[in-house]
Amino acid sequence: MPKAPLPEAAMTLLREPNPAVISVVMPSGHPMSVATWYLVEDDDTVLVNMDAGRARLRWIEQHPHVSLTALKQDEWYSHLSVRGPVVRWEYDEQRALADIDRLSRHYSGRDFRNRTARRVSAWFEIAHWHGWEID
Amino acid sequence: MPKAPLPEAAMTLLREPNPAVISVVMPSGHPMSVATWYLVEDDDTVLVNMDAGRARLRWIEQHPHVSLTALKQDEWYSHLSVRGPVVRWEYDEQRALADIDRLSRHYSGRDFRNRTARRVSAWFEIAHWHGWEID
Repeated sequence: MPKAPLPEAAMTLLREPNPAVISVVMPSGHPMSVATWYLVEDDDTVLVNMDAGRARLRWIEQHPHVSLTALKQDEWYSHLSVRGPVVRWEYDEQRALADIDRLSRHYSGRDFRNRTARRVSAWFEIAHWHGWEID
Repeated sequence: MPKAPLPEAAMTLLREPNPAVISVVMPSGHPMSVATWYLVEDDDTVLVNMDAGRARLRWIEQHPHVSLTALKQDEWYSHLSVRGPVVRWEYDEQRALADIDRLSRHYSGRDFRNRTARRVSAWFEIAHWHGWEID
């Protein structure tokens, strides 16, 4: 797996609102994965945002390393995986809604619908990546 | 996360040739994820097949628990994740090509193109699952 930075074609794919899956490690040491929105920010970090009640939020706090695989929409033979340590958290509800809004606009073009949601943001650093069929 | 067995709607989604991502744990203890083909077999196990040279093959051998998230094609708000222990391996090249052919036919309608590939199969048990927007 190459280390960051990503070549431009990989970064282009990563910046698109593609389907994605995030993986975390549970306290058992086993992996757990789930579909997620994500957004590249500051070129080398990736924002994800979770409901404050999610078990995986606690799991990431306990083991702050994640992996994310983005599949090119309608052409998922092209895919890109990035992984690295969580370098920043944002628990404040007001601030985290700004983050989920940014994610929601990226994927759906509109703000997040649930305005009373309690959300938490995490940013992880792109420390390693690997891709497949990325022009 | 509910334990297996899956309800019928979840199993129906899982049986479709949907885009999917598998997650494993590396020797560092951190998660790693990558896009994959998969196929439900015997109702409660999932077949995946890897090139014999893949690093993740060794990682799964060392930590034989995986997670897989399937995203409904063209509608990935519907997604399903299954996870559990690897319960069977198949290293024999002839046999493993039969497996990758079965996967290839499921996804592409034809046998796997590379007839000299060295492939390894692994089956993991669906011990736990969770889904989202599965009718």
